[in-house]
Amino acid sequence: MPRALSQVQEAIAELNDLLCTFSLLSWDARTQLASGGHVVRGQQIASLTRLIRQRLLDSALARAAERAERSLDPDDTEGRRVLSGLRSAIEHHRRIPWALQSELAELAVRAQVSWQRAREQEDFQQFAPDLHRQVELQRELAQAIGFEAHPYDALMGIYEPGMTAARLIPLLEMLRQQTADLRQPSESEVAGDFPEDRQEAFLRELLPLLGYDLARGHLARSAHPFEVSLTRQDVRITTRYRRDRLDTALFGGLHECGHALYEQNVDPSLTRSLFTTDLIGLYAVGGTSYGAHEAQSRLWENLVGRSRPFWQRHYPALQQTFPEALSAVSLPAFLKHIHQVRRDQVRVEADEVSYNLHILLRVRLELALISGALQVQELPEAWAAQSLELLGARPAGDREGALQDIHWASGLFGSFPTYALGNLMSAQLFQAASEDTQVRSGLEQGETSALLAWLRDKVYRHGRRFSAEELLMQSTGRGLDPGPYLAHLRENYRPGRWS
Amino acid sequence: MPRALSQVQEAIAELNDLLCTFSLLSWDARTQLASGGHVVRGQQIASLTRLIRQRLLDSALARAAERAERSLDPDDTEGRRVLSGLRSAIEHHRRIPWALQSELAELAVRAQVSWQRAREQEDFQQFAPDLHRQVELQRELAQAIGFEAHPYDALMGIYEPGMTAARLIPLLEMLRQQTADLRQPSESEVAGDFPEDRQEAFLRELLPLLGYDLARGHLARSAHPFEVSLTRQDVRITTRYRRDRLDTALFGGLHECGHALYEQNVDPSLTRSLFTTDLIGLYAVGGTSYGAHEAQSRLWENLVGRSRPFWQRHYPALQQTFPEALSAVSLPAFLKHIHQVRRDQVRVEADEVSYNLHILLRVRLELALISGALQVQELPEAWAAQSLELLGARPAGDREGALQDIHWASGLFGSFPTYALGNLMSAQLFQAASEDTQVRSGLEQGETSALLAWLRDKVYRHGRRFSAEELLMQSTGRGLDPGPYLAHLRENYRPGRWS
Repeated sequence: MPRALSQVQEAIAELNDLLCTFSLLSWDARTQLASGGHVVRGQQIASLTRLIRQRLLDSALARAAERAERSLDPDDTEGRRVLSGLRSAIEHHRRIPWALQSELAELAVRAQVSWQRAREQEDFQQFAPDLHRQVELQRELAQAIGFEAHPYDALMGIYEPGMTAARLIPLLEMLRQQTADLRQPSESEVAGDFPEDRQEAFLRELLPLLGYDLARGHLARSAHPFEVSLTRQDVRITTRYRRDRLDTALFGGLHECGHALYEQNVDPSLTRSLFTTDLIGLYAVGGTSYGAHEAQSRLWENLVGRSRPFWQRHYPALQQTFPEALSAVSLPAFLKHIHQVRRDQVRVEADEVSYNLHILLRVRLELALISGALQVQELPEAWAAQSLELLGARPAGDREGALQDIHWASGLFGSFPTYALGNLMSAQLFQAASEDTQVRSGLEQGETSALLAWLRDKVYRHGRRFSAEELLMQSTGRGLDPGPYLAHLRENYRPGRWS
Repeated sequence: MPRALSQVQEAIAELNDLLCTFSLLSWDARTQLASGGHVVRGQQIASLTRLIRQRLLDSALARAAERAERSLDPDDTEGRRVLSGLRSAIEHHRRIPWALQSELAELAVRAQVSWQRAREQEDFQQFAPDLHRQVELQRELAQAIGFEAHPYDALMGIYEPGMTAARLIPLLEMLRQQTADLRQPSESEVAGDFPEDRQEAFLRELLPLLGYDLARGHLARSAHPFEVSLTRQDVRITTRYRRDRLDTALFGGLHECGHALYEQNVDPSLTRSLFTTDLIGLYAVGGTSYGAHEAQSRLWENLVGRSRPFWQRHYPALQQTFPEALSAVSLPAFLKHIHQVRRDQVRVEADEVSYNLHILLRVRLELALISGALQVQELPEAWAAQSLELLGARPAGDREGALQDIHWASGLFGSFPTYALGNLMSAQLFQAASEDTQVRSGLEQGETSALLAWLRDKVYRHGRRFSAEELLMQSTGRGLDPGPYLAHLRENYRPGRWS
């Protein structure tokens, strides 16, 4: 490797180390930091973030990248991808003024506090000023990044490069129309007492069967489940437990396990390279776009984890774990239980069918806020009206409405769409995988090792080398296609499916 | 505050943030990192360490410090202390060549692995080459740092500024002579089954009674107990549990709690300042020298935690926690149990009397290795001979001998003396505190809040503002004095004391 290119690779490796370190600060804050430690932790995170940005924008790195480009072997497509990825990231961050970046970071901390308080007291006005400023800054951010059609595209591009509002909205509206008639009963035979330790023990048995390697992992608890990867060697997940409900921890665990399988199966040679480092979002992550990542969590949670063969295989063990609650519940009754459609007002508890309506609701409101068509003061009423239209009811209050998600407080405008895009991609990948004979015959037995091998080969091992669209083209032969996802919903939520 | 000085303070605050972050990487590696994650974690630690050193040696910081010195108000003694502390640190690290620093860091990682393997296979030769290189590098390090009498002074000075071999050796030899006749029986009535969860629950009740604030803390488990402070707001301790023994976790917990009380009680205004940042050792720590820190752990573990009134107060709760094992054990029998003298071959399990002999043994060998009088190949035999002389027996093998401690693998030459110095200081502080009427009458009831208040006022709140020697002068009216510690040992380990 030419010396200049190897210098660049070393700088990227160091950035990856620092971004993993950033992830650990945040993991720790969410899983074990005592209440008294959060203010200084915020300062530690701010210092490290500032430093990471300085390292990325260090003129010495830009010069090394230029030297590397000049000395690059014309056949070195891998080196070219690295250098062009680095150049885009440097240009992206150079366009964002330091003052804006730093106000965004400070506001995110402050606004999460005011959002939390507003939520507790169900008083939107306590959050409104910070949200107002957040919208202003997000508009500035969009202008700084640059866009063609709509400022929203600039923001969404941080999470899902190349996606535009013009492409997204028709997809979401079409999903809405085509699933409007899907109904499933919401009553259930599953109820009882599910001690948390036993739920955790069950997950510790189940997830390794799916391929989650605990020797390179860690299963912890947190208020909001998440996955974090400090390289493929250290991929951690959390879930939360409710003693009165089985599905929160179970499907939360399967969801995060899906994210973890992606990260743990990135090719080892990509560790600490640009292909496991998001230098736009400044996040150490092995999987490509947010949508592609969400596709894996949804695939394992829903396509695998709610299927009949999967539970034909694993339900007996679940019954043995909770004999009091489940011995009298048949497999069909359990399958019915995990396919309820409830049009819930809360996104994180929404069923598969309603989930995308939640995303449409948020995207409509984000677009209107960013374009200026909607004022922050009008947001609670606008939310309620959208909710009535899309979910059939107004929220009971702002806690289920404009104060529902932490995303706007954190400044994550444009990230919601990746959840719906993940749904679409999950089914598209699953369908393509199922065309493989070994994968299909495994799945018919509820056995997923051939599926994992297929996903590893087509998707996981590549890390961030290819974009989500490239991965879809390579592995399914076509770009993003909502067909398989619609078919999955219509098949699994048609009337009488689980009776 | 003049602008230049506040720039310097900001740079120090950032260094503190990064050093706390470093501590978290290491805490996590020792408490929850899965086995597969340790190699990349080493890279992450190396990247952050390199960066911290670069920030400290950044010429812009040195220039800001010079500007601040020129514009300093002559009456600003606090500012003067900050600038002189920063200048010493910059000069210290400038003297250490980057190549040496980086080889030391790499060697520490490699040597810990070869030490571990050598220990497992009880084969000193597997560790010898790395230890040989370690000794060479430590000599180079001593030369780079500079010293007057003995290269060992340069190394010890990293941990205990101002201490010299010429002062230390007579102290340790005197301790040896004056305690040679102390004996206590090593048989005990305390035995049985002590379930780990109940031991932990007992510590969670006991340590807050001593003042350990769990809202700014965390009690975890690790193979080797330790305390770490990510500012006073987040002070964590670990201990280890043995189901067949009560004292390992109990006194380990009290020991780490002592460290934690120091850190949690530093004045809040010192957070992220030079007075909570060790820029020589490059470690975020609120307490001054290693010896002064160890003094607190020893004070709470031994002076408080092995005293009769303390257990008059807390033994009933301990009996209630372990009724099967302890209900038939009287308080005198328990006190006898925790005052055994066994001349154990293993330092971390040594009793109070033998402990200092372990330190003398290591210091003699370190001095000989650093001066070149002893070769690494001769070390196992030299250890055995010293052990015979000081502890009355040769070790059963190198695992109890030259392979006993991780310190040499890690490159911590010169740190052992701080354990013995801590012992001396602990008793000197405890005696001075006991002269206060409130403290004494509290202690007579086994109640420690007045003691904590005294220590907070005299020692803890000052952080690193004063040296250990200054703190001793201010709080006890004299410099380091072995008298109180000797008196403590002679009183508590005299024949018949606990019969």
